[in-house]
Amino acid sequence: MINRLIEKIKETEAPIVVGLDPMLEYIPNQIKEKAYREYGETLEGAAEALWQYNKGIADAVYDLVPAVKPQIAMYEQFGIPGLAAYKRTIDYCQEKGLLVIGDIKRGDIGSTSEAYAAGHLGKVMVGSQVCHGFNEDFATVNPYLGSDGVKPFIKVCREEQKGIFVLVKTSNPSSGEIQDRLVDGKPLYEWIGKMVDEWGADCMGDSYSYVGAVAGATYPEMGKILRDIMPKAFILVPGYGAQGGQGKDLLPFFNRDGLGAVVNSSRGIIAAYQQDKYAGFGEAGYADAARAAVIDMREDIKSALAGR
Amino acid sequence: MINRLIEKIKETEAPIVVGLDPMLEYIPNQIKEKAYREYGETLEGAAEALWQYNKGIADAVYDLVPAVKPQIAMYEQFGIPGLAAYKRTIDYCQEKGLLVIGDIKRGDIGSTSEAYAAGHLGKVMVGSQVCHGFNEDFATVNPYLGSDGVKPFIKVCREEQKGIFVLVKTSNPSSGEIQDRLVDGKPLYEWIGKMVDEWGADCMGDSYSYVGAVAGATYPEMGKILRDIMPKAFILVPGYGAQGGQGKDLLPFFNRDGLGAVVNSSRGIIAAYQQDKYAGFGEAGYADAARAAVIDMREDIKSALAGR
Repeated sequence: MINRLIEKIKETEAPIVVGLDPMLEYIPNQIKEKAYREYGETLEGAAEALWQYNKGIADAVYDLVPAVKPQIAMYEQFGIPGLAAYKRTIDYCQEKGLLVIGDIKRGDIGSTSEAYAAGHLGKVMVGSQVCHGFNEDFATVNPYLGSDGVKPFIKVCREEQKGIFVLVKTSNPSSGEIQDRLVDGKPLYEWIGKMVDEWGADCMGDSYSYVGAVAGATYPEMGKILRDIMPKAFILVPGYGAQGGQGKDLLPFFNRDGLGAVVNSSRGIIAAYQQDKYAGFGEAGYADAARAAVIDMREDIKSALAGR
Repeated sequence: MINRLIEKIKETEAPIVVGLDPMLEYIPNQIKEKAYREYGETLEGAAEALWQYNKGIADAVYDLVPAVKPQIAMYEQFGIPGLAAYKRTIDYCQEKGLLVIGDIKRGDIGSTSEAYAAGHLGKVMVGSQVCHGFNEDFATVNPYLGSDGVKPFIKVCREEQKGIFVLVKTSNPSSGEIQDRLVDGKPLYEWIGKMVDEWGADCMGDSYSYVGAVAGATYPEMGKILRDIMPKAFILVPGYGAQGGQGKDLLPFFNRDGLGAVVNSSRGIIAAYQQDKYAGFGEAGYADAARAAVIDMREDIKSALAGR
């Protein structure tokens, strides 16, 4: 799957992931009103609004980007109907040819991580039948429980040719409280970067590993160090746009081959119509605004990469 | 909710949580066959088997213990139908008067952690209506992203009088790879224990905080240190029974008041009938075997506490 991601990045010239993290306040009133008329102001109504909104975005950007990254929390808050909208979003995006990175940040011990890995990237057996729970192409994984928690995912990646991105240095302001603590003179995230490099070594695609990492655009110096520590890991870079990162901040995350990083933007794309810059599209044009924002982001990254 | 947990522990004389972590291989064939006849060898069939199995356990133990702890991964692997069985289990256990600890180990940044907190412990607004996603009484939380990830849960705990257990030192063999790394001369889990103590200080029930911790029975010496660092935090202790912990190993997790810890056993109770000791109950008697195992566990802990 990492090979397909790289192919698609080359095709689209866009190392970009659209973060499908819908919040009700992003969704145009017209979509919400229609959903509530049909399903009431209920979890089902909210889930329908999420799904219709996502469908509009996917239809508008599917030919421009290699992948989307739905953040499962934004669906899970609406209970079972919300999660059904998450699943429907995955299926639809895959039908449109998009790769799907499930931003699930799961991580647990032994048999429990096995269950998460099976449910999101692999398969389960029910009696004599093979069934699939969510079936994303990639998933994000939390390493706090150590290799017990990560290895079941790697096993499934190998079996199913899927991929993971392990949280190494997250983009949020307080990520340093734990991740930056010095261990034997080096911050913890560097140690975890080393673990990612080791985990990935026997799980290689053509040029990059099935085991990638998450490192936030908000910390470019750390990105540079991590890039060196994990030369074969693709880095999923959140924090571009709404969280403050810009094209030039992204350079340290890329290798000299122009690959090795894929940059996520969520609100900056899916709610672009709420920014002054794209206000002309109006609420009804939210999907076209998202398309315009993707094109601008692509050019921003392209020119940053060309200028180095 | 921490007050209710303590009341119920006193009433039942059992600081015990039954881990509802069903695996298909634990479930008696009769239950599985009936479910598959009705729903096929599908995700729905598996989910029905999980639910019927759980219902049997809940009916057999609800008067003996204060709480259950369903591990969401075991349901999530079966996709949406599996998660619907998780929700049904929560609702049914609450109807029977049990407190429900959602073992979800979620943790993300800002608005995303807010969404998890709202979906699991709080409420969401859909239009003008208040809706509830999962509505557990407690949830487990992963602290790897720092206080940004934990504080949204604490806010909801305060609003809804619910509780969390933050992963501090997990019971699995590789937990030390990250959690035991020395930071300024002390292992990371001690630093996180301090954070739990601070987070909990302004979120107090009558005698313990809404903010608890997870520390594994497999590491009793570390439990003793953590007990001192976080005097007001209830400790959720996994790793008893099948993972190797015994009654005497649990003493360090309790305060002198005989409170402060609640011990989870999953497989050791719910699949007790598969152990030699309880084999006499047979498959059909799996729920009675679970009841017997709870009574034995209660006596084991009682005599350990009495003997100290």
